[in-house]
Amino acid sequence: MVSLMNTPKIQLISLLTDFGTQDEYAGLMKGVILSVNPLARIIDISHQIEPQDLIQAAFMLRASYPFFPKGTVHTVVVDPGVGTQRDILGAEYEGHIFLAPDNGLLSLLPEKGEFRKLVKVTNRSFFRENVSQTFHGRDIFAPVAARLAAGLSLEELGPQTDFRQIQKTEMPKAFRNAAGEIRGQIIHIDRFGNLMSNIPRTILEKSGNPEQITVHIGTRCISGLPSAYGSVPKGHPLAIIGSRDYLEISVNCGNAMQYFGLEKGGRIRVIYEN
Amino acid sequence: MVSLMNTPKIQLISLLTDFGTQDEYAGLMKGVILSVNPLARIIDISHQIEPQDLIQAAFMLRASYPFFPKGTVHTVVVDPGVGTQRDILGAEYEGHIFLAPDNGLLSLLPEKGEFRKLVKVTNRSFFRENVSQTFHGRDIFAPVAARLAAGLSLEELGPQTDFRQIQKTEMPKAFRNAAGEIRGQIIHIDRFGNLMSNIPRTILEKSGNPEQITVHIGTRCISGLPSAYGSVPKGHPLAIIGSRDYLEISVNCGNAMQYFGLEKGGRIRVIYEN
Amino acid sequence: MVSLMNTPKIQLISLLTDFGTQDEYAGLMKGVILSVNPLARIIDISHQIEPQDLIQAAFMLRASYPFFPKGTVHTVVVDPGVGTQRDILGAEYEGHIFLAPDNGLLSLLPEKGEFRKLVKVTNRSFFRENVSQTFHGRDIFAPVAARLAAGLSLEELGPQTDFRQIQKTEMPKAFRNAAGEIRGQIIHIDRFGNLMSNIPRTILEKSGNPEQITVHIGTRCISGLPSAYGSVPKGHPLAIIGSRDYLEISVNCGNAMQYFGLEKGGRIRVIYEN
Repeated sequence: MVSLMNTPKIQLISLLTDFGTQDEYAGLMKGVILSVNPLARIIDISHQIEPQDLIQAAFMLRASYPFFPKGTVHTVVVDPGVGTQRDILGAEYEGHIFLAPDNGLLSLLPEKGEFRKLVKVTNRSFFRENVSQTFHGRDIFAPVAARLAAGLSLEELGPQTDFRQIQKTEMPKAFRNAAGEIRGQIIHIDRFGNLMSNIPRTILEKSGNPEQITVHIGTRCISGLPSAYGSVPKGHPLAIIGSRDYLEISVNCGNAMQYFGLEKGGRIRVIYEN
Repeated sequence: MVSLMNTPKIQLISLLTDFGTQDEYAGLMKGVILSVNPLARIIDISHQIEPQDLIQAAFMLRASYPFFPKGTVHTVVVDPGVGTQRDILGAEYEGHIFLAPDNGLLSLLPEKGEFRKLVKVTNRSFFRENVSQTFHGRDIFAPVAARLAAGLSLEELGPQTDFRQIQKTEMPKAFRNAAGEIRGQIIHIDRFGNLMSNIPRTILEKSGNPEQITVHIGTRCISGLPSAYGSVPKGHPLAIIGSRDYLEISVNCGNAMQYFGLEKGGRIRVIYEN
Repeated sequence: MVSLMNTPKIQLISLLTDFGTQDEYAGLMKGVILSVNPLARIIDISHQIEPQDLIQAAFMLRASYPFFPKGTVHTVVVDPGVGTQRDILGAEYEGHIFLAPDNGLLSLLPEKGEFRKLVKVTNRSFFRENVSQTFHGRDIFAPVAARLAAGLSLEELGPQTDFRQIQKTEMPKAFRNAAGEIRGQIIHIDRFGNLMSNIPRTILEKSGNPEQITVHIGTRCISGLPSAYGSVPKGHPLAIIGSRDYLEISVNCGNAMQYFGLEKGGRIRVIYEN
């Protein structure tokens, strides 16, 4: 066995933005972070959130942070309000640190209870000297994240605030109707064309036997809930619990988005056969 | 002179997947790696293998690993069989460590002889506690790679196996026909539109004088084998030995794929003039 | 307060190339860098410069390097002349180190005076043993950058040269005409569809009151110079000083490129109302 016990504490920052990778934006955030804190380690979650898509970012953040070490500073910059009076928030939740504009990005997090800490980031002494009007990722978020990773406490960033005071983002919720059907929709389509729904595993399990479901998508339907893409022949569709623990529609070695001609927002229905 | 002799051993992991960069998948692998082993360094070879394209990944892996430090843990996740009974392999070859599903990804490696070690990865004590059905990159490959980088030996992962037992991927091979022509095909097209063939430099050199070749592509042909893109005027096509040591068709400051209207799989013929 | 004073010197390398991210090219540069110098840290500025677009790369480099720590080795590989007799340059400017082909990439840097050092990179003892014809990024730039980051002095790379001797790239310049109008053009379009012009903030400020400008783009015009995207309603266009300190045309929560149907090279005029 290899002991990894006595390794030094890592000063880790994750980045989740809509900056893309063709421009210098993400690179400059990293340059500023390392200028302030040369010991910081930086991991990209994604820079390809659709421009200004707060729901996609909030959902990806919630699905991602638990897989990072506790203490990671998750820095989320999807910021259509940059340059306006919108606030910036710092938060602690489940042992992780979060930094994001106050526009709903953090509002999907507290499922298991309140934020442990929640502050408005107002202390300009941690910002870059010249703050631009259009790129707070570089001028505010990066230097603040660098210092949080180095151990700065959230309290030093600004006054405490409260979950009730901050902006909320609503992810459309799946529900069970009177007839016992679960109604949901496609909220994300990944690189493989997998259709990720807003129907969590929990709702499927408590509403009946998940192995006896039929999923209706447009005019087509799929029966059962197999445990691997390869449980159906190549090119065939299937319903499966995806890595975010939500119901997904896939095609084995294929692209479900193309197969079903479905887009984000497309409706799906789950019926229990018995 | 600068001495780089006494630097500490690097715990390096390379990643090669078809996960793309728009989703959180590659980021989560890195989060898990650093959760297990904070000293790991991680380099992306590419996350843009075409979904499920095992041949492209196997070829890119073979072309890439020699440029990393010995001891690097090359982690390859192109995994259409995720969730099925397919095995996962750990291997040592030429001083490098490899981790990949048993689906042919590693089968192009042993050109210069056998794997030094080859094991099936079965020891679940190195996996994440909850292994999902669809994302073994995060739940198995990442934590195992993290420990291999920290010095875990392959033997601890599971039982030994043998090259004859594992799945193979065949790259279409170039050959010389009775008339002395070399027949090959385009097996990769890069970002620049360069057409990379499956004709290795070695076959060109042992079959005649490479400077006297004519390459036939569709109804067109190119003569000679210059040593730089800039050996022909801008916008003109040329044949050249590319960085993987295979014959490539390029256009100086242009895009050969568009110029020739060729796709992957397109045929090329090499004739020696004399 | 957190002291970050006594952190070790970081051996930082930035990469700016047209290699894209689908191929192994950028990954191999990193593999070679870490093979030579395991202590190097590597940050991507971008690998998505349009193939062979020297002006875009030179402009992005100039806009990016000041946000990195002094001493960073900025390695720029946009290299249509690879394999020809073109030189490779090493430079020091404003406390930063630069490494690039001699094709104009470094020529936009010295605004505030001469390079402190400028050399031709000729000392093959720092190159990889086998230098390919098509991929000097891997075979020359990576190992040289790795050693520069470790403290190798530029003088060891080859003979001194002079700004007058090197290739120049010209960015089209904005100018003020006899009627007092500023004439410029779109030189970059970012991921959000923001139209970045070549009109610097300084020219706007010294030619009149920037708050009283009208910007003419095709048959449309925009008045004023607000301080945030959110200063206009969603979907409305605006002119704003962007993060590179140049005039940009944007659409609040929208895409200015699509809104105006404009491409790179498109003309814009600024008129002062009074």
